[in-house]
Amino acid sequence: MSSLLHVIEVIGVFVFASSGLVEARRKKMDLVGVFTVAFITAFGGGTVRDILLDRRPLFWIENYEYPTLIFLFCLLVSPFFRQLRQVVTEKVIVYADALGLGLFSVGGASLAFEMKMPLFVCVMMGVITGIFGGVLRDMICNEIPMVFRRGQLYATCAFLGCWTYLAMALLQFTELPAVLAGIAMTVVLRLLAVRFDWKLPG
Amino acid sequence: MSSLLHVIEVIGVFVFASSGLVEARRKKMDLVGVFTVAFITAFGGGTVRDILLDRRPLFWIENYEYPTLIFLFCLLVSPFFRQLRQVVTEKVIVYADALGLGLFSVGGASLAFEMKMPLFVCVMMGVITGIFGGVLRDMICNEIPMVFRRGQLYATCAFLGCWTYLAMALLQFTELPAVLAGIAMTVVLRLLAVRFDWKLPG
Amino acid sequence: MSSLLHVIEVIGVFVFASSGLVEARRKKMDLVGVFTVAFITAFGGGTVRDILLDRRPLFWIENYEYPTLIFLFCLLVSPFFRQLRQVVTEKVIVYADALGLGLFSVGGASLAFEMKMPLFVCVMMGVITGIFGGVLRDMICNEIPMVFRRGQLYATCAFLGCWTYLAMALLQFTELPAVLAGIAMTVVLRLLAVRFDWKLPG
Repeated sequence: MSSLLHVIEVIGVFVFASSGLVEARRKKMDLVGVFTVAFITAFGGGTVRDILLDRRPLFWIENYEYPTLIFLFCLLVSPFFRQLRQVVTEKVIVYADALGLGLFSVGGASLAFEMKMPLFVCVMMGVITGIFGGVLRDMICNEIPMVFRRGQLYATCAFLGCWTYLAMALLQFTELPAVLAGIAMTVVLRLLAVRFDWKLPG
Repeated sequence: MSSLLHVIEVIGVFVFASSGLVEARRKKMDLVGVFTVAFITAFGGGTVRDILLDRRPLFWIENYEYPTLIFLFCLLVSPFFRQLRQVVTEKVIVYADALGLGLFSVGGASLAFEMKMPLFVCVMMGVITGIFGGVLRDMICNEIPMVFRRGQLYATCAFLGCWTYLAMALLQFTELPAVLAGIAMTVVLRLLAVRFDWKLPG
Repeated sequence: MSSLLHVIEVIGVFVFASSGLVEARRKKMDLVGVFTVAFITAFGGGTVRDILLDRRPLFWIENYEYPTLIFLFCLLVSPFFRQLRQVVTEKVIVYADALGLGLFSVGGASLAFEMKMPLFVCVMMGVITGIFGGVLRDMICNEIPMVFRRGQLYATCAFLGCWTYLAMALLQFTELPAVLAGIAMTVVLRLLAVRFDWKLPG
């Protein structure tokens, strides 16, 4: 079960990195820009969380194979960018991104909960972990961050997913079902929001 | 007297949060964006200072009722945004913001001074605490930060206010009169700058 | 020899500060903006590195005469900005900037290597130290960071310079020749890239 979570995490990292890669290519950046933006999209949220909570080493320094993999990934994928965009359709990206959002957010909330942070802070750390990679990506690419613009629910799904996890953790469920319920809540809400075009009021 | 300072601090937090809220609404962000930008405007300066000085827990984690209050504030205020803008005139905002600037800056300088930082670093920490919430707000909203553009003196008032505080602290005044003098200097300079349109050379 | 490195470091700080100053003036910022952007360009890369590695005090707090010097520099230079731009030609800036890039990058990599970070992380810290001042400068000035846009090799030179340093350090060379080789590699590559218009594929 733990190795399942690990697989999801790797998927999450690559999905987020890919979204950075796509955005960087759209802005006509070169390979350095592509790698940096991919890296920051994948690890930015967790890094901001770790800095705010003062956790060291940062998780991409502890698992330093990740940045290396992302670097190779950018090197390998860049020449085949056009072909790739035809295989990896918009729909695949939405699914994978929802999964990444769920895992990163609930993972961040669980980590803050272990550190005995106040509940609202746990939720904030979860949401920050889930969305700040994308926020930094958009700030570097000189855009108003996508998650703050009026679109289909995104951060709100992570917010409710984190509360789901916390509620179950407080009700003395063990870690695994609580985490899975939080992730499921985030992912399902996000996919429903895309499917039925749910938006927050402006 | 200390409870007076606490009241001013709460006012400062809400004033800065409101300025974030206004800016986020202007950019047509949704509720998530409004909360995030309000939050970052209110706590961004102090957070950057605490990270630079390696102080933990961050002050909004220690006083975690603040983010919760800001969250509720955004939820409650957003539907009545238009009416609110008529009651809270531009003039009220300028006064309140000057007060917030004074308190945040001198508070930041005093904190660095307690940590025995070099004087110029104390002043920088003060100015960072006072202005970086607004800088981050403008960066997220995809604007060149307001305080760096040629306008009526703003950071300069904080700069001189912090030196006032430090001068008095070095002259062996006790903390309270030194802090109050620093805040007063900042606020008065800022209001005079707005009144008489004082600007720095370009 | 160590005092030679110190001289180069001071040159690096002022070169990077000047590039911030030029950019801030171009955006019509006032003195506060000019100082802040100059400061962030000069110290931003090292600060991000130190925060990621959790090193304190930050190097500009330890050597607090630097920010004071930059402050005085901005005060003195601003009135003579136009004359200065004629003496300090584009060519001088390119040379000086290449030197700064080499020193900052290899210095950052060497620092991470001393902390026994994994090799790829050492290189990343080196590149971050070298380029992030400019990245933050461009983000504040509301531009897509120059180093990410398709231009003549820049971060790539730092990347290869850091690997040169690491290779020599791993081959048991002493610190000084390894550092100098890394700096030389970065600077020469950068100047060749400018001279022959070398670019990365988009």
